[in-house]
Formats: sequence, structure tokens, C-alpha cells
Amino acid sequence: MKNKSTFAPMRKIRVFAPATVANMGCGFDIMGMTLDAVGDVLSVEIGEGDDLKIINKSKQSLPDDIEQNVITPAVRAFVAAYGVPMDITVTVEHKIAPGSGIGSSAASSSAAVYALNELLDHPFTDERLVEFAMEGEKLISGGTPHADNVGPSILGGVVLLRGYDPLDVVRLPVPGRFCCAVAHPDIMVSTREAREVLPKEIPLRLAVKQWGNVAGLVAGLAEGDVALIGRSMKDVVVEPYRKHFIPGFDELRNKVLEVGALAMNISGAGPSVFALCDNMTLADKVGEVMKAHFLQYNIDSRIYVSKISNRGARTLADYNFEG
Amino acid sequence: MKNKSTFAPMRKIRVFAPATVANMGCGFDIMGMTLDAVGDVLSVEIGEGDDLKIINKSKQSLPDDIEQNVITPAVRAFVAAYGVPMDITVTVEHKIAPGSGIGSSAASSSAAVYALNELLDHPFTDERLVEFAMEGEKLISGGTPHADNVGPSILGGVVLLRGYDPLDVVRLPVPGRFCCAVAHPDIMVSTREAREVLPKEIPLRLAVKQWGNVAGLVAGLAEGDVALIGRSMKDVVVEPYRKHFIPGFDELRNKVLEVGALAMNISGAGPSVFALCDNMTLADKVGEVMKAHFLQYNIDSRIYVSKISNRGARTLADYNFEG
Repeated sequence: MKNKSTFAPMRKIRVFAPATVANMGCGFDIMGMTLDAVGDVLSVEIGEGDDLKIINKSKQSLPDDIEQNVITPAVRAFVAAYGVPMDITVTVEHKIAPGSGIGSSAASSSAAVYALNELLDHPFTDERLVEFAMEGEKLISGGTPHADNVGPSILGGVVLLRGYDPLDVVRLPVPGRFCCAVAHPDIMVSTREAREVLPKEIPLRLAVKQWGNVAGLVAGLAEGDVALIGRSMKDVVVEPYRKHFIPGFDELRNKVLEVGALAMNISGAGPSVFALCDNMTLADKVGEVMKAHFLQYNIDSRIYVSKISNRGARTLADYNFEG
Repeated sequence: MKNKSTFAPMRKIRVFAPATVANMGCGFDIMGMTLDAVGDVLSVEIGEGDDLKIINKSKQSLPDDIEQNVITPAVRAFVAAYGVPMDITVTVEHKIAPGSGIGSSAASSSAAVYALNELLDHPFTDERLVEFAMEGEKLISGGTPHADNVGPSILGGVVLLRGYDPLDVVRLPVPGRFCCAVAHPDIMVSTREAREVLPKEIPLRLAVKQWGNVAGLVAGLAEGDVALIGRSMKDVVVEPYRKHFIPGFDELRNKVLEVGALAMNISGAGPSVFALCDNMTLADKVGEVMKAHFLQYNIDSRIYVSKISNRGARTLADYNFEG
């Protein structure tokens, strides 16, 4: 940690933290990638005192009790490590729909700790910020915290969480043509529920298949080989248990592969799905196929078509310093 | 397959196929790397007819029944795909000790199919040669064939077997400073025995840890980050079951890490162990520590200190064409 800066009695910043796709098919709990232009916008204000307030100005409903908001444990972890109490007011201006499976909780906690680090002149490294934001993930996952959404939301790009003890965050290169279509169907699957369907033990044979794919995915990223990435983005371990939350999952995959997507998988714990594409025109088309698919089941969906971005959490220029 | 060349009534070649380290710690059944200057030397002679002979001129004892020799199914698979019967005489001139855990069977079958492909003017790709050589591995593993030794023995470097259906062989870059010390203690562990101790199911939690390490290993190779490779070369799935075959395994690892090795693991199914080092001087020192360790247990060992080589099977120049 760098020296603590004395902070002005009132300072404010407005930040954005992007939505993210965790797991990326085979990389359950260890990988995530960053979307472009969809995410949370927070204003964070600090001053003297020792109080935390969270104000919701977004269209999403958030828990009234701040103890149930992921921002709270993340901010508390930051302040505890910083060692100086302060008044903090977080205003949630824009929020990804909770339960979307594109890292909605991670975007909030990432944005909050990123904002504090900016306001206090960067006392912590990005890796430490990931650790603080993970406290938010702990709250919603009901146990072991994961960093496969907060990692990319803070750092951007594709992020590998090699291990957690100690946390080992590795940023992987993102091939230029790497983009995807994400559909967030209007159904609710909680992260906790999605965790509970998983078996405690898996066949060694399937585990080997999965880590062969993980190796192929990382090699494909390193070599910019989008076809290899596509071949490797297969989840033989977790998907069989989770795909039942998503109406017509196998049928949808067949449809999007048919129009040219390289792979389709569940995003994070679902219910969002994402399809890897090697160009944006195709991704747009795939998005339409996804939209039409869910409508067949009388389910509306939000479609995001996005390049995979190298940028993570960032300051929004329009009111960087307010007196 | 290219057009079949008509071959002279008698042609002969002498080839070398290197020893290999399969698994590389975390990459059980999916990765292997190629050693330098240790391996099998075979002479292969073809002519008209339909007979296979294997002559052993090496110091190792080989089965009298050629049906029990790994060379046989590999050669037969090659000839079946080639579609023209021929007389084949394989002379084993030099052989890695069987049961060494550095791909002794793979070196033989790789050398044999490589030699035939050279003699017949390359009818097959390297990937097809890997498939033929895998038939030899099938014989000794008593079931599912693996390519984590034959892959690197034929192609050289670090080889990833992403999947087997269809076979997906990916060559990974080898960092310049990447070298290792291997100790082959004079104890016998069969591949079959080493397979039989493995559980059919493993905890999902451990599988995730393993594929985090696999991802770190591949990322480390891609970025030439030897420290990341070292941190990632940890096997939490298979090693706990196999290390008991190797006297004082944990103690030995502590010793070699203390002198500066980056990681130590079982090579393939054992009983050989290998330690990753970032320079040859250190690898020499680690080799001595290994030798002394096994002597404490009254076990002699062969020590190999080697860079990881980018060269796989190759023709030895000294009698390329004999009349």
C-alpha cells in the first residue's frame, strides 16, 4: 500500500464497471472476459466520518438493507485495509439487471472499490481491489468467493484466476476479432441455486476433458486462434446440470452454431447465454436468433452484442471532481 | 494422404525419437514435453512382402512375442492406413529403460512410424503419425490410448492434446530458459498399476484447482513466464495417489525447491520425477540432489539434465540410405 493521502472533506467520482462473462465455457470458476459498453455506473462520495450510505437511483430494485447489498462488504474490506475510517455515499445510477449472469453483482462491487481507490490516489493494486470486490461475491454465493466476474470487471480483457491461495490473477491477451452475443432471458436463476445443482464429485474422465479444453482455450487466446478458442469453449462438467434452467438450451445452441457462431455456452451461473463470434455482423445475427428463440418460449430477452473489451473499470469524465 | 510412392525393394533408415515428460504436473493426460538427447534409436528396413520382424540389439530386454511389443500395433496401424503390404524389419539399437516414466514405449512406437513415413516419402501428417503411435500406447495402458508421450516424441516441444475425438494436437511455444532435471529411480512401476490406483471420481473443488493450474501453465508457456509455469506446475488430483510409489517424494520435493527448482512433479505415470529449472547450472545441481536422495533409500537412479527441446523424432544422418 502506498502512503495514505489526506483527502479533502468532500470528494466525489463517477465510475463505470463493465459486465463480464464468467467461466467462458470450460473455465468454470477460473476465467472471465469483459464486455464493452454494458455495466454499472456508480457515483461515490467520501468525507470525514464513519458512515456508509447506498442510494439507488437505477431502474433496478436493490435491497433496502445495505447489509444485503454486495457493495457493503466490498467497501468495508477496502476501508479496513486502508485503515482510516471515512464517510462513504454510493449512488447507484445505472445497474445491470440482478440475476442476469453477466456479473451484475460483480460490476457493483468492482465499481465501488475502483472508485475509492481513485479518490484516495491509488493506495492499492488492481489485485488487491479484486480481493476487496470478492467480498461482495461472497455475500451472494453464500460461501466461497470467486473472482471470475470481479477480476475482468476491474482489470478488463480476459482474466485467469489461477489460484486463490494466494490470489493469482493473470491477464490474457484478447484476439482482435474476439466478440460475442449475449442473451439475458427474462427468467430468474440465483447464483446460489445454480451452485446447489452441481455435484460435489465428478468423473476424472470428464475433468481431464475439461482441462484439455481449458488448455486449448488459453492457447487459442495466446495465439489469437479464434477457431481453436471455439473448439475449446465446451463445458462438459457444469453445463449438463445448469442447462435445464434455460428453455431449449441445446436447440438454441444448434441454431446459433448453424448460423456460424463458434461456440455457445452459459454465461456465469446463467440464465444468460453467450455465443462466440469472429465478427460483429455475425454476432448481430446470432443475437437475433437468440431473441427469436426465447420468444418461442414466450420469454423476452435483452440482447447484448459486444467486442470483448480490454478495458475494465474506469472513471467517467463528466464529473470527476465535484466540490 | 499423398500419393503412394513406389519403394525400392530394400530401403533402410535410422531414426531417433526423444524421451518425453507427460502430464507436466497439472496436465494429466493432455500435455507432454520433449527432452533433448535421450531417447530410442531404431533402424527400419522395408521391402516387398508382408512380414514384420523386430530385432533387439539394445541393452534392454524386450518381449520375445512381437504382439507384446508396442512397435507392432503402431506399425500395423500405419500399414493399414497406407494400404500396401510390405516387409518391415525394425532393429531396436538403443532403448530407454522400460517403465522409466519418460515415455519409453512412446519413443519406440513414435520412432517406428516416423521411420516408415520418411521411407515412404511422407504419406501422412504428423497428427496421423501420432494416431498410429497411440496404438502402441493402447497396448501397454490396457485400454484408452493417450498421446501425451507420443505427441511430443513425434512433434517436439510442448504438445497439448486438447481432445481425442477427433484428435486435436496443439503445439505450444517453449520458453528459452525452460529446462529440467529428471531422475529415474531404479524401481518398477507399470503404467497399468499407476492407472489402477486412480479414483474414478474426484472432488469438483480439486478439478477446478487443477484446471486453474493448467490454464496458468499454458499462459506461462505462451508468455515465456517461467515463474508462472513453476507456480502452475502443481498436480492436486493424481499425485496424491501416485506419489507413494516414489520413496520420500515430499521430502525430495522440499529439497529440490530449496536449492531453487521452480517445481517438481512425477513424470508421466512415474517412477521418474522431474524438476523444472530456469537454468542448466541449477538443473545439474538439482540432478545431484535427486541422485543423493534416492541413494539414501538404497536406490540407484539415472539422472537426465536437459533443455526442453523443440525437436521431436528425426532421421540420424549416418546411414540414411543403405542399398
